[in-house]
Amino acid sequence: MNNGEISTAVIKRLPRYYRYLGELLNNGVVRISSKELSERMGVTASQIRQDLNNFGGFGQQGYGYNVDYLHGEIGRILGLDEKKSMIIVGAGHLGQAFAKYSDFVKRGFVIKALFDIDKDLIGRTFNGIKVLSMDDLKAFLEETQVDIAAITVPKDPAPKVANELVKLGIKAIWNFAPTDLSLPREVALENVHLTESLMRLSYKLKAKESEGL
Amino acid sequence: MNNGEISTAVIKRLPRYYRYLGELLNNGVVRISSKELSERMGVTASQIRQDLNNFGGFGQQGYGYNVDYLHGEIGRILGLDEKKSMIIVGAGHLGQAFAKYSDFVKRGFVIKALFDIDKDLIGRTFNGIKVLSMDDLKAFLEETQVDIAAITVPKDPAPKVANELVKLGIKAIWNFAPTDLSLPREVALENVHLTESLMRLSYKLKAKESEGL
Repeated sequence: MNNGEISTAVIKRLPRYYRYLGELLNNGVVRISSKELSERMGVTASQIRQDLNNFGGFGQQGYGYNVDYLHGEIGRILGLDEKKSMIIVGAGHLGQAFAKYSDFVKRGFVIKALFDIDKDLIGRTFNGIKVLSMDDLKAFLEETQVDIAAITVPKDPAPKVANELVKLGIKAIWNFAPTDLSLPREVALENVHLTESLMRLSYKLKAKESEGL
Repeated sequence: MNNGEISTAVIKRLPRYYRYLGELLNNGVVRISSKELSERMGVTASQIRQDLNNFGGFGQQGYGYNVDYLHGEIGRILGLDEKKSMIIVGAGHLGQAFAKYSDFVKRGFVIKALFDIDKDLIGRTFNGIKVLSMDDLKAFLEETQVDIAAITVPKDPAPKVANELVKLGIKAIWNFAPTDLSLPREVALENVHLTESLMRLSYKLKAKESEGL
């Protein structure tokens, strides 16, 4: 199968399918119809059939989907069949919170180290994960295979940090700094702009109010 | 102007315009052409003209946009012209990080209190913001006007927490729990599913690799 054929919109929905199928699996559900899955997920059954048809014939008319198989297959497409190692650059509040967040490791994302320039943070340990100095980043990445770097530093140093990470061979950046990074084409980037998300919520709230809801 | 006419796609882009215009304003820029703004933002000039035309004639052909006016106008559309008060339900690592994150208050989102059920957390203070007991939620909301509630509790209690917040009159929920909330139509909802974002990054990394980049 060629992943290149799958549309961005479908890709965006895959993690949600993965989450629902994982919950079904945990509850011992073996098969599920697109109708049942659609009722749970609040999407139309035809949307589900269309989306899942992208990955070949998992479903059989009138027989439903094999939950375990589909979960595994979507996981494989998302690259979750192999553990990923991650570092967090910026050991402030958000970086510390991520070090302690158990959901990442449950999904196979293992945090190897935190990095910071703050002498008061360097040497400290959060959830068993050590804060190293940025001066040690190069040596660390030469010794340790790291797939993903999360950037949780403030806006101003973020572009420099990102460039350094890319120069040292990092191929995937998860950016929380409220700025846009311009990275080489071969580097995967995913932004989480928290304040922008909050602004969208503010807009939605205002829109509901002006609808008189 | 009727906000109802603006498409969701434009709304999604507004916080980013707001951020860029705010930076220009900080740098003392008074006017900017759509061409210049497009180069900075990495969008086409025609996209910018189309987007900003939604809000009436801010720009004049060959003369550019008035940065201060446009920034203020977009802020107004996003509802940022008035301060918003916020509570955080779930005073764990993520809730604590948000209490300490200065970017929210800078944009006018003021956190009034944290709430938790954990006796070890209740009574503690993070960045001057107190952790209150969930038992005090009702009384607190009767006394204090709160616009937004962030939910940073684990997956399982999240739907119950959300229902309680809605019952007590909260009209906007910022959900970080890795689950889908089903809320009445009049309540604004914005989800930030961190693990799903990480899965999308994992997919992008895999896609880049398979392109041979």
